[in-house]
Amino acid sequence: MSERFFTTTPPRDGRAVLAGDEARHLAKVLRAREGDAVVLFDGRGRSWSARVARIGRDTVDLDTGAPQIETAGAAVRLTLAVALPKGDRQKWLVEKLTELGVAALVPLETSRGVAEATDGARARLERGVIEACKQCGRNTLMQIAAGRRLDRLLAEAGADTRIVIADPGGGPLDAAAPTAAEVMALVGPEGGFTADEVAAAEAAGAVRVSLGPHILRVETAAIAVAARFAAAAAGRV
Amino acid sequence: MSERFFTTTPPRDGRAVLAGDEARHLAKVLRAREGDAVVLFDGRGRSWSARVARIGRDTVDLDTGAPQIETAGAAVRLTLAVALPKGDRQKWLVEKLTELGVAALVPLETSRGVAEATDGARARLERGVIEACKQCGRNTLMQIAAGRRLDRLLAEAGADTRIVIADPGGGPLDAAAPTAAEVMALVGPEGGFTADEVAAAEAAGAVRVSLGPHILRVETAAIAVAARFAAAAAGRV
Repeated sequence: MSERFFTTTPPRDGRAVLAGDEARHLAKVLRAREGDAVVLFDGRGRSWSARVARIGRDTVDLDTGAPQIETAGAAVRLTLAVALPKGDRQKWLVEKLTELGVAALVPLETSRGVAEATDGARARLERGVIEACKQCGRNTLMQIAAGRRLDRLLAEAGADTRIVIADPGGGPLDAAAPTAAEVMALVGPEGGFTADEVAAAEAAGAVRVSLGPHILRVETAAIAVAARFAAAAAGRV
Repeated sequence: MSERFFTTTPPRDGRAVLAGDEARHLAKVLRAREGDAVVLFDGRGRSWSARVARIGRDTVDLDTGAPQIETAGAAVRLTLAVALPKGDRQKWLVEKLTELGVAALVPLETSRGVAEATDGARARLERGVIEACKQCGRNTLMQIAAGRRLDRLLAEAGADTRIVIADPGGGPLDAAAPTAAEVMALVGPEGGFTADEVAAAEAAGAVRVSLGPHILRVETAAIAVAARFAAAAAGRV
């Protein structure tokens, strides 16, 4: 696979210009030369085969081919609402959910949660999504939503969205969301959701699901749900 | 959940003695006092409720109750043979596979693999297993096997073991291992298995499985397989 570069400015007339970190990485770290092949993607499902045309001081000009449109990989559109862990665990979580095809990550605010989704934190998570997309070949960014309180998130969920809530006493995930096209999975903080939070979710139609006999860390639970749907999607492609 | 401590020396006559790091952690980090409640586990499925009886200079004496025997959590005994990634990714892999109930991890030696399973590396992985068991409530250690070449591993596999190999062109995991009691999943290095390696695995009865449309990192692929079986096991408990 050629090196992949992200741009928010799509090519025009077969030309694109990389700037900033992306240009520096290509010119300085990879020591690209004119004629080298790369891939450009816009994070919204389009990608282009490209060749280095000119290496400037702070920019790299690319000659681009016709856009490729990413086909919808997953049959299920999965949103994960997660009471974010801290530090490295948060970074890992974003990388893995991106690789596994999760559509959107909602930082979930709960009674026992610790990490807040500040604007700075969201920007950091978004950079993590882009890096993971470059590595795993995904052309549509995982969306990082604004932080939401659980009650607000439940009130906003569409009627067709199947909601599952990770809870040690729940049933199997397979039985909870077999055919829905939109699934939202709720993963609580270390220490779990409070009984009131689980009750509020159930009142909003959520199904409690268990992910195994052990006490999973927050990021493990979220990745386990994502893996379940990625595996199911693979079967339908 | 009370703090959990690992011992290789089971209690006798209702008494156990913690030494080394476990004793230091309890006495110095947690500043335990006589009478404090803890849990002791032996990594082979047994655990004991216990109370601190005496805090010595380098040891802590515990009064222990009757042993609890861990019931077999997973209906499927899953062995993951993985071309280990390096550094933090290796550490992270072990933590997650332990949480998700994987029975054994085999460091897999492949043509494109990079990390070797030296004795030092195995000891480090085993410490990671113990730490994860303490945290997630698992009482049976995940086994860290000696490193194996793929051909030898395939030759040694039992006739009743269902073998699956992660490969981008494969079918759905769900269809590949529906009822087997013993499953061994093969996960290759960055860059994947060679065509010869895939062919050798298929000749030994392995089924190729895909884990989604993107290029998963080694540890993501391994965790995705483990999550699949953990979710299935949850449904059967």
